[in-house]
Amino acid sequence: MEKFEVYILGCGCAVPTKLHSPSSQIINIREKLSMVDCGEGTQLQMRFHKLRFMNLRNVFISHLHGDHCFGLLGMISTFGLLGRTGDLHVYAPAQYDGLFQQQLQFFCRDLSYRVVFHAVDTTAYQMIYDDRSMSVYTLPLLHGVPCCGYLFREKPVLPHIRRDMIDFYGVPVSQINNIKNGADWVLPDGTIIPNSRLTRPADPPRSYAYCSDTAFYPELIPRLEGVSLLYHEATFTEERAERARMRFHSTARQAAMIAREAHVGQLLIGHYSAHYSDGRQLLEEAREVFPDTLAANEGMVIKV
Amino acid sequence: MEKFEVYILGCGCAVPTKLHSPSSQIINIREKLSMVDCGEGTQLQMRFHKLRFMNLRNVFISHLHGDHCFGLLGMISTFGLLGRTGDLHVYAPAQYDGLFQQQLQFFCRDLSYRVVFHAVDTTAYQMIYDDRSMSVYTLPLLHGVPCCGYLFREKPVLPHIRRDMIDFYGVPVSQINNIKNGADWVLPDGTIIPNSRLTRPADPPRSYAYCSDTAFYPELIPRLEGVSLLYHEATFTEERAERARMRFHSTARQAAMIAREAHVGQLLIGHYSAHYSDGRQLLEEAREVFPDTLAANEGMVIKV
Repeated sequence: MEKFEVYILGCGCAVPTKLHSPSSQIINIREKLSMVDCGEGTQLQMRFHKLRFMNLRNVFISHLHGDHCFGLLGMISTFGLLGRTGDLHVYAPAQYDGLFQQQLQFFCRDLSYRVVFHAVDTTAYQMIYDDRSMSVYTLPLLHGVPCCGYLFREKPVLPHIRRDMIDFYGVPVSQINNIKNGADWVLPDGTIIPNSRLTRPADPPRSYAYCSDTAFYPELIPRLEGVSLLYHEATFTEERAERARMRFHSTARQAAMIAREAHVGQLLIGHYSAHYSDGRQLLEEAREVFPDTLAANEGMVIKV
Repeated sequence: MEKFEVYILGCGCAVPTKLHSPSSQIINIREKLSMVDCGEGTQLQMRFHKLRFMNLRNVFISHLHGDHCFGLLGMISTFGLLGRTGDLHVYAPAQYDGLFQQQLQFFCRDLSYRVVFHAVDTTAYQMIYDDRSMSVYTLPLLHGVPCCGYLFREKPVLPHIRRDMIDFYGVPVSQINNIKNGADWVLPDGTIIPNSRLTRPADPPRSYAYCSDTAFYPELIPRLEGVSLLYHEATFTEERAERARMRFHSTARQAAMIAREAHVGQLLIGHYSAHYSDGRQLLEEAREVFPDTLAANEGMVIKV
């Protein structure tokens, strides 16, 4: 299977602690790295994960609270000091454009590479990125400030070759690619072997949705229908549901309800309040509603 | 002796590594905390040192390269989230004022406390802070951008009481403070016991100079004459002296020459280039010129 992995660089909330770093993840789809959010210390977390700086192409920022973007300038500076040449694309709420350019101008003059800012409309569900491997969509969230999640959809992959049939009909290696792409095979006597006998259907394309930060927001459900893996913030337990509501955060139970209603494959929770010494209590609460839940932790790599 | 300690939060150079954090130190003088420089991750280093956030009053920024100031906004945000009320004073090169205010306005609105910016003239040697415990002076440095070090001078302390004499003459406890402050003692028969018989001279006031980043800059020497502890950057060894000169950094040998010529009590080196896996090579080079040299390391606490 083609690579599609999520690396947890940070899954704590606003106040960095010894246990958790602020929000950041790397999505590796076919060795192209995308980042979602970039809290303080993210560049160091990349080092701990042994992720190659130069393979990072796109950074998607959900919103402009410091714990989701204060690592950006330091990372951009470091890339420059290390002589990066490839463009780096930064997708962030449109409101950041002016200040971001000023910060770059002040702190990161004479970079060896280009930083391209893409203003994101956090209120619309739309495709903002597309290449041969994946598409990325915005997911409007409810957080009191302009904020959106991001949905990564893998592009359809080719069907599997049936090795036994290829051998049986003596198809040469040079033709495998054509057959993967749908061609039939014609025997020397003119008999046509239809493609469907030579292949097994492709794996269905996988998808990953990152939803942080947000209050309980059922409008998300149709956008998330059937995603393979959903990261949904779970800052509090139900005991603190009122606090969650007032601060535009979710409880673990609410995250699980979204996962259940959207029929996602698996739920990953994070963005734990510093109040919880570990994610266990939050995980238990979520699993009561949606059993296939994981609790994020720095250092974790999840195969989608 | 009154407390006068230096905590090393970060002593690496521009590119953060798994070994070293970017520049930051805490100076504790009589339980009042000052910070010099604030690279990315500094707030976390404070936690590792178990330093109390609320005791930090003043932050002195040497220059506006990211590895000396990218931790500032995150730290200010965190203090706000934790409900700080006391003012925080930030001393930094005047050039930062406009952008700093914009960043505060954008990321740190509705703080629970005041952040007061003090524009520093990095070209002048002058006192910029003074209270009952200490004075702080700027030390112009040579770094290609506006840059100054900071000199912390403890205020004179009171003489030591001679316990044996106090007992001998039967001086009551209520009078000790007067005697510490210079009073003589009069016996019932009218005999005057001069203060000098009741006390031993006070410890000479101590001082700490932070000089980073800078090229070799002998103009510093008279300013540093006799300081108790000098932190001087030592980015490279002599083999890379030319690189040091071009990038406005110093070699370990140059740091030691400054220490020797200024007759400082002790030298502390840091700001190691990522090229050196540990500080040992730099330390050996410095000690050839100035034997009483220490190599800084994160987690270190040095009594001045």
